[in-house]
Amino acid sequence: MSKKITKIAVMTSGGDAPGMNAAVRSVVRTCAYHELECVGIHRGYDGMIEGDFIPLDARSVRGIINKGGTFLKSARCERFRTTDGRQIAHNQMVKAGVDALVVIGGDGTFTGALHFNAEFDFPVIGIPGTIDNDISGTDRTLGYDTALNTAVDAIDKIRDTAHSHDRLFFVEVMGRDVGHIALNAGVGAGAEEILIPEEDMGIERLVESLQRSKISGKSSSIVVVAEGDKIGKSVFELKDYVDDNLEGYDVRVSVLGHMQRGGSPTCYDRVLASRMGVKAVESLIEGKSNYMVGTIHDTMTLTPLEQAIKGESKINKELIRVSEIMTT
Amino acid sequence: MSKKITKIAVMTSGGDAPGMNAAVRSVVRTCAYHELECVGIHRGYDGMIEGDFIPLDARSVRGIINKGGTFLKSARCERFRTTDGRQIAHNQMVKAGVDALVVIGGDGTFTGALHFNAEFDFPVIGIPGTIDNDISGTDRTLGYDTALNTAVDAIDKIRDTAHSHDRLFFVEVMGRDVGHIALNAGVGAGAEEILIPEEDMGIERLVESLQRSKISGKSSSIVVVAEGDKIGKSVFELKDYVDDNLEGYDVRVSVLGHMQRGGSPTCYDRVLASRMGVKAVESLIEGKSNYMVGTIHDTMTLTPLEQAIKGESKINKELIRVSEIMTT
Amino acid sequence: MSKKITKIAVMTSGGDAPGMNAAVRSVVRTCAYHELECVGIHRGYDGMIEGDFIPLDARSVRGIINKGGTFLKSARCERFRTTDGRQIAHNQMVKAGVDALVVIGGDGTFTGALHFNAEFDFPVIGIPGTIDNDISGTDRTLGYDTALNTAVDAIDKIRDTAHSHDRLFFVEVMGRDVGHIALNAGVGAGAEEILIPEEDMGIERLVESLQRSKISGKSSSIVVVAEGDKIGKSVFELKDYVDDNLEGYDVRVSVLGHMQRGGSPTCYDRVLASRMGVKAVESLIEGKSNYMVGTIHDTMTLTPLEQAIKGESKINKELIRVSEIMTT
Amino acid sequence: MSKKITKIAVMTSGGDAPGMNAAVRSVVRTCAYHELECVGIHRGYDGMIEGDFIPLDARSVRGIINKGGTFLKSARCERFRTTDGRQIAHNQMVKAGVDALVVIGGDGTFTGALHFNAEFDFPVIGIPGTIDNDISGTDRTLGYDTALNTAVDAIDKIRDTAHSHDRLFFVEVMGRDVGHIALNAGVGAGAEEILIPEEDMGIERLVESLQRSKISGKSSSIVVVAEGDKIGKSVFELKDYVDDNLEGYDVRVSVLGHMQRGGSPTCYDRVLASRMGVKAVESLIEGKSNYMVGTIHDTMTLTPLEQAIKGESKINKELIRVSEIMTT
Repeated sequence: MSKKITKIAVMTSGGDAPGMNAAVRSVVRTCAYHELECVGIHRGYDGMIEGDFIPLDARSVRGIINKGGTFLKSARCERFRTTDGRQIAHNQMVKAGVDALVVIGGDGTFTGALHFNAEFDFPVIGIPGTIDNDISGTDRTLGYDTALNTAVDAIDKIRDTAHSHDRLFFVEVMGRDVGHIALNAGVGAGAEEILIPEEDMGIERLVESLQRSKISGKSSSIVVVAEGDKIGKSVFELKDYVDDNLEGYDVRVSVLGHMQRGGSPTCYDRVLASRMGVKAVESLIEGKSNYMVGTIHDTMTLTPLEQAIKGESKINKELIRVSEIMTT
Repeated sequence: MSKKITKIAVMTSGGDAPGMNAAVRSVVRTCAYHELECVGIHRGYDGMIEGDFIPLDARSVRGIINKGGTFLKSARCERFRTTDGRQIAHNQMVKAGVDALVVIGGDGTFTGALHFNAEFDFPVIGIPGTIDNDISGTDRTLGYDTALNTAVDAIDKIRDTAHSHDRLFFVEVMGRDVGHIALNAGVGAGAEEILIPEEDMGIERLVESLQRSKISGKSSSIVVVAEGDKIGKSVFELKDYVDDNLEGYDVRVSVLGHMQRGGSPTCYDRVLASRMGVKAVESLIEGKSNYMVGTIHDTMTLTPLEQAIKGESKINKELIRVSEIMTT
Repeated sequence: MSKKITKIAVMTSGGDAPGMNAAVRSVVRTCAYHELECVGIHRGYDGMIEGDFIPLDARSVRGIINKGGTFLKSARCERFRTTDGRQIAHNQMVKAGVDALVVIGGDGTFTGALHFNAEFDFPVIGIPGTIDNDISGTDRTLGYDTALNTAVDAIDKIRDTAHSHDRLFFVEVMGRDVGHIALNAGVGAGAEEILIPEEDMGIERLVESLQRSKISGKSSSIVVVAEGDKIGKSVFELKDYVDDNLEGYDVRVSVLGHMQRGGSPTCYDRVLASRMGVKAVESLIEGKSNYMVGTIHDTMTLTPLEQAIKGESKINKELIRVSEIMTT
Repeated sequence: MSKKITKIAVMTSGGDAPGMNAAVRSVVRTCAYHELECVGIHRGYDGMIEGDFIPLDARSVRGIINKGGTFLKSARCERFRTTDGRQIAHNQMVKAGVDALVVIGGDGTFTGALHFNAEFDFPVIGIPGTIDNDISGTDRTLGYDTALNTAVDAIDKIRDTAHSHDRLFFVEVMGRDVGHIALNAGVGAGAEEILIPEEDMGIERLVESLQRSKISGKSSSIVVVAEGDKIGKSVFELKDYVDDNLEGYDVRVSVLGHMQRGGSPTCYDRVLASRMGVKAVESLIEGKSNYMVGTIHDTMTLTPLEQAIKGESKINKELIRVSEIMTT
């Protein structure tokens, strides 16, 4: 039988995402509700190794639900990949009297948590916090909805100037391995073409499509490109290719970059964070471990961490088809 | 066997919602994709009776995906509730060569569509467009996500001043019969209390809770109130009651009002609108009628219109619990 | 000759305004730059009387430049209006070793500061922080630019729904004694009519104008109304009057309210706050007192506090004319 | 004596800027107010040569005051730089019965207008529309205020992630020849360093300053860089240099790019556009020509076009000093 939990630690790790603060707040308040102690760990596993802990009560997370970034800070940590590093981290946790852990982050974060649990039988629950929505076991990750809206707002602005000058813009959005942001922000922003890692449209087909578009009288165009698009060209290379192979287009490039990670979270992400924090803490109280909290079909769920890491996040084929119809 | 569709009409009706333009755009472009003609009807059933139609092609809906409101305009129509009114409307549709209809709106809109279909065997498909999210057969209605973010942004601003002055604010949000906006925007904005039509918290319990909150050192508070909250008091009456029964609070009132209906739709609402428009037109092409398009578990679905009207949209009990834990 | 300043106190008082945090940050950092100590006073004069001080260094104001409200909090204080109250306050200042004061607020705040200076020869400099722009001696007050944009954004949303439904909206914005917000936000939002305290348009002329507008084919209208408009009717009374005296209009009301006080400050307000804070502290260092910092013709200026209080903030007649031409 | 004006043409030219639509609207409505005809010219001088005109009345500019970009479109035009091109353009204007011209744009646009006037004695008035604020004869150009806010919003988001990960970001903003955007957005966003074309800070001093900053415990930093900063390195080269010469910094780059040109104009830009349009048309009516409308000390002014082109837009030295104090 599992030991009774009395003190829970929470941390954010990996790439930051809007809603992480709201999730920490929810973990802290749920602890307070159940009369458990709660500590925050600064800078992810790095801070765990260094014992960089801070006690958190309901009051200390006031006014952060709408703040971007993570006040606990985040980092990638090499030392935690070693048995030695994890041993030191565990010593710190024991010393601080912590008996369970909530980690907010992505794949790498969860892998560390699994090792930590395997070696010290330490209860861990994960909350999927990443703008990429590339984690299996949840319909949406924390921060994804906000990132979509940030991207769409930026592309709306770019379209204003594209349209005024009859230009073609290649706009790069985040997504090295998955095209969720590109596909959804592309449809949302009314992009003429969307290039994602999951589908190889082929550079010739792109050029043909742009040509058709030109002939049909469309004078400006937005092509949304995921960082890791299948064609394998950067937005700068795409521009050069079109400059060389298509006449009559004034081509420009915009890389949205890191602003997609920041900003005040949307209502959806704040609510999701609140729900996930409650589920995470109450799962630990119930003696569960090694699970990731998720939302599937709008219901709070638990997925084994191992499965969440190995699983694949599928692109929505129906939405690819919708995107093609919209650019008729 | 149903007649082959060649010309589809689309209209918006009832209270407007962000995303209606994006839905009309999608209907029009899907028609173009399938080489069908498309006409827009101005001012809902009113315009149908008056034959106020406008031909729409892919180009005529350019640049509207991000616009709030509905360029086709909307209206409530008394005449369409009569057999005579509907007969005239049908004559107009026949005269214009329209053989199927997509209606974007809420309950009342769908009821009209059902009558129209029953009397003239006219193919109709509904798209749920309303900020209230009060329609059964879809997890989310068009415009709901945008309205939540508009409400949360406004409450964030109100909290700034509430906090600076140690004040208690009663903030009224839309929702005469359902508390979806109040509950979600309340959790999203970190409200101390949320009053909804589905739950009777009782005015005494509210006062007690505010008193506890005060004693625990909370100096400012936001209470989010749905228009039709169960306590049955308006935000102005609530203010008066608290003024009379609670010491030490400086109480203010804010009614968010109609701004919740406007604004550029969020990425979610734009994508949902695009998907719903495709599904609506393709359902008509497949010979279907009397259905409402919806999204259930992120899959596009069809629900019989009759069921959508009669069904109930349930408040999320888990989220009510989360809201209580968050205000510990 | 004036004593050398070594420790400056800063406080916010009266109605809060966006940019107050940025101004406090600037005061604190300018003190650090000149190697002076700085303390913050909580809740305005109330906190001064109670000795509610907090030491502030460059680091303690990190991350607040973009936050709405005021982290020092604000309050109106009855006790400071009495000689006794001010005596206690002075004792607290002396006890804390404070030898100069920067007050951020409006008329009332400055009046208190003048009394305090007169009685104890205590150096004071004022920074005009109020959304109303109703202070003479500066072209713009802190928070005014942000409030304008908040109002315009809200009216843009209201226009979406007004236009969709062919409605007439009376939108109340802040401004009990001055019409700056109403006039500028009205022109910025493209309002059909603007009612301000400085001009009496007369209710009949309003009705006539709306009638003309209706006849000319305008189907929706926005009338922006300052709280203290000269006609002397609230937006609710205006609605009733138009309902009774004008046919064919579907009239609605929206009161923007306190959200106009909150929100992240615009770039203009952040820059203005930064400039004003520097000017305030350096004026004290130079031995000046009883002045208000201002920006006139984009140059930082000093105006005697007495003059700032008594002066009048004139409405821009040219802009009234522009507003009339725009609604031709 | 100058001929009576009866028909005015308006066009936008050069790089687009938020507020151009609002300015066109104002020109059109002021014409309507004075019972003059008005035509819009598409794509600047290009459209003038091709006679691409469109009649505009008060109604045709409804609903555009809040739209980014320019619905008349803009372009750079080689042919208008030749006498032949201008001759054809003049023929088109005469043919269309146009007897005066309002041009909205920057330096290049005004130079073309001057030539056109010199050769055909054609009345022209310029409105300064450019986000760069690099035109002499006006305190602010149209679009500048909006661009500042767009840049600040984006940098706020970047700071969220910079702070979460203890990173140093070089953020490039627009400004090839002038540092107005960089300086103001830098101060507004609380940047640690600001690099502009007007001042050579020297790369060593930058590195030293960052080093000091690091030692003082600052863990994240934003350096705002104008496109044409005096150090003469791109943000990518700056990153490489710091990577090679500074230890302990995780450096990233973000280029805000063309999104700075788009977006709904701020209240300030909408009001400025409205005022400038009135002044431009009424100046033509008064028989004036070859002037640029401007706002100096918040008063509408006229500056000879020649002077506006040759003049220099000075950077605000006081604000440079403020920026240095703020980063103490």
